[in-house]
Amino acid sequence: MTNNLEQIVSWAKRRGFVLPGSEIYGGISGIYDFGPYGLALKNNIKKLWWRTFVECRDDVVGLESAILMNRKVWQASGHEKDFIDELVECKKCHLRFKADDIPSQECSEGGKHEFTELREFNPMFKTDETYLRPETAQGMFTDFKQVLEVSRQKIPFGIAQVGKSFRNEINTKDFLFRVREFELAEIEYFVRPGEDEKSFDNWLKLWGEFIIMLGLRKENIGHYEHSKEELAHYSKRTVDIQYAFPFGLKELAGVANRTDFDLRSHEETSGKDLKYFSEETKEKYWPYVIEPTVGIERLVLAIICDAFEESKPRTETTEAATEKEIVLHFKPSLAPVKMAVLPLVKKLSKEAREIYEDLKNCWGDIEFDESGSIGRRYRRQDEIGTPYCITIDFDTLEDKKVTIRDRDTMKQERVGIADLKNYLFEKLNIG
Amino acid sequence: MTNNLEQIVSWAKRRGFVLPGSEIYGGISGIYDFGPYGLALKNNIKKLWWRTFVECRDDVVGLESAILMNRKVWQASGHEKDFIDELVECKKCHLRFKADDIPSQECSEGGKHEFTELREFNPMFKTDETYLRPETAQGMFTDFKQVLEVSRQKIPFGIAQVGKSFRNEINTKDFLFRVREFELAEIEYFVRPGEDEKSFDNWLKLWGEFIIMLGLRKENIGHYEHSKEELAHYSKRTVDIQYAFPFGLKELAGVANRTDFDLRSHEETSGKDLKYFSEETKEKYWPYVIEPTVGIERLVLAIICDAFEESKPRTETTEAATEKEIVLHFKPSLAPVKMAVLPLVKKLSKEAREIYEDLKNCWGDIEFDESGSIGRRYRRQDEIGTPYCITIDFDTLEDKKVTIRDRDTMKQERVGIADLKNYLFEKLNIG
Repeated sequence: MTNNLEQIVSWAKRRGFVLPGSEIYGGISGIYDFGPYGLALKNNIKKLWWRTFVECRDDVVGLESAILMNRKVWQASGHEKDFIDELVECKKCHLRFKADDIPSQECSEGGKHEFTELREFNPMFKTDETYLRPETAQGMFTDFKQVLEVSRQKIPFGIAQVGKSFRNEINTKDFLFRVREFELAEIEYFVRPGEDEKSFDNWLKLWGEFIIMLGLRKENIGHYEHSKEELAHYSKRTVDIQYAFPFGLKELAGVANRTDFDLRSHEETSGKDLKYFSEETKEKYWPYVIEPTVGIERLVLAIICDAFEESKPRTETTEAATEKEIVLHFKPSLAPVKMAVLPLVKKLSKEAREIYEDLKNCWGDIEFDESGSIGRRYRRQDEIGTPYCITIDFDTLEDKKVTIRDRDTMKQERVGIADLKNYLFEKLNIG
Repeated sequence: MTNNLEQIVSWAKRRGFVLPGSEIYGGISGIYDFGPYGLALKNNIKKLWWRTFVECRDDVVGLESAILMNRKVWQASGHEKDFIDELVECKKCHLRFKADDIPSQECSEGGKHEFTELREFNPMFKTDETYLRPETAQGMFTDFKQVLEVSRQKIPFGIAQVGKSFRNEINTKDFLFRVREFELAEIEYFVRPGEDEKSFDNWLKLWGEFIIMLGLRKENIGHYEHSKEELAHYSKRTVDIQYAFPFGLKELAGVANRTDFDLRSHEETSGKDLKYFSEETKEKYWPYVIEPTVGIERLVLAIICDAFEESKPRTETTEAATEKEIVLHFKPSLAPVKMAVLPLVKKLSKEAREIYEDLKNCWGDIEFDESGSIGRRYRRQDEIGTPYCITIDFDTLEDKKVTIRDRDTMKQERVGIADLKNYLFEKLNIG
């Protein structure tokens, strides 16, 4: 792992993981695009999340509510009134800062900052008639009764959603950590009042286990319990799961006990009955809601930071021995490219391509590379975190075996072409 | 298939495929949410598209550019100036209509419509500093050089993206057909000028084949070649692939030859070099761009219309013989639920659940249902298009066999529990 954020930003751009949005026009503050490898990594994370929490469970169902919602949703949820940041602006350099994040250093053009009074600011993006949603949760509350009915679930059960959200952050910073357009993966888990605290503990545990399953090191994970003063207007209890980013131990994910705040408020504003009726106990009530959340961009950043290694040249084949090497130790299931097929020299392209085509039928995310020295190609794959390189050499023509190089151990093993798929399947399945 | 759109809207809501957005607040015009089954169907379509055009090809790479882009992008692309709808408003009932879609019927409150003069209207949603993107294409143009470099591709090659787009449609209508928030799946395929017409024909063929692969009937597909007057400001040639929706033969997908309009325009506005340099021929040029596009919501709607059947009762077990039955004949690979496990009576739940758990490890999208008569449960699964129902009865305890019912033929077959996975795997793989 690395504590150098600059290094990560530059690597992410160079290797096409994360690109500044609209870069040819000087960018747009706090907005990033995902290039081919970054998108593959992000999609692998999202897939794993969906499999774990929706497909593998009988008590959670999926929903995709729209980004644009009736403005009344944001009035009832309290966002229009209470979703407020406090900011100051420097009268000289015109930079704006969150009130709890005012810098002490000087303006770039010399002299000390000179701040305006505190000003309130609602970070929701406004469109003509409504706002861009700042969280995905509200769609799961407004659709609660319909989803309950069509899914034929009983309480306790959850609704899951992954989707874009938008916050017009005053001070975007720390690369993917504080951005204005981002994806949230959230579950709203509806429980009987009184069973909320136990459910909270359970979800906090499951959430932590998922993060460890992604390969993040335990020693980089922290927990932060919000004090009474820090709790959001809807929350009875909130615990952040933190990650030791290069810029400090910060929120990566969290679990909140939203109580019946949202359902109650939507019922009061809309006049529609949003209570749950239990066939068994004949009780009618607003369920309490436990909300585990994780920011996908923050997860991508944490996984990159954790997997990133800059080392002295690891291989003899490195041409410039003074150059440093970068290796991304992604968990194989998350790696954007699972394996690369490399003919030692171009003469062996035909044989290598046959092997490549055969493997590509099994694994879509696989590369063929025949340009540059073999050491250079290994380094290229190390830099994007490819777990296995498969090299075809002249011996392959004789013994029908290829060399498989392991990204992390750099050990090389000869494996028969006939056994190749089984070998890789087992390796990738464990990882 | 059905020509009754009302029937589809009502089925889609009742079975949790598509719900009106923000419905508890009276909805929001032209915005829909996808419930559990609809989302599964949509995701299956998107996965198949991504596999076909990105993962299975060596010449197309993925990108996820942001929804929010620098405003200059929309100035250079021509959208700020030329992306114009013409509308009229009725002075009495205040409904607004597109100029090419003015109704002849009367106002709902009596009397004839009385229209204002034609007025120009830009359907991009405005936020404080920019617009919500009305198409995903521009991100693939602005990032063209970076993606080219990081992916180490050579022309011809393509960039693919699936993502949300927004258009503030004057007159939303026809359910999912004309909505204000929607997903596009697009490829921008960059070719050498002069090779654009051949590439256009090739993509038109591939696009048509994909649509047929999704299971849409050939006789419901049409083609429409845009006349010179109809072409968008950037296009040299556009062909729509149409589908015979209940409301007429309308655009489902399309291929456009965008020439070098966008890259040239972005180079002129940004001052950045967006030309391609060919190592082989030493030529430097703006590539021409062939753009195959498909609207995911329209695809979902076409697939539903095509798969929808309303029939007289098909089974003896139907309780109310006068009731009509609905069956969705989805292709198994697209079906939201692949199979349902049904114990004949609750006494057999334990045995049935064991089989269910075992199958769920192989296929995530599977249901367990033990409530109601077996006929009612078959009908419930038919209505969401589940290809196979697996029934556990008292004989199962003796002969270790279950009954598999086929959604389309309604044939029932006894299959040994030991052979079940192989049987289903083969069936689902063909379908």
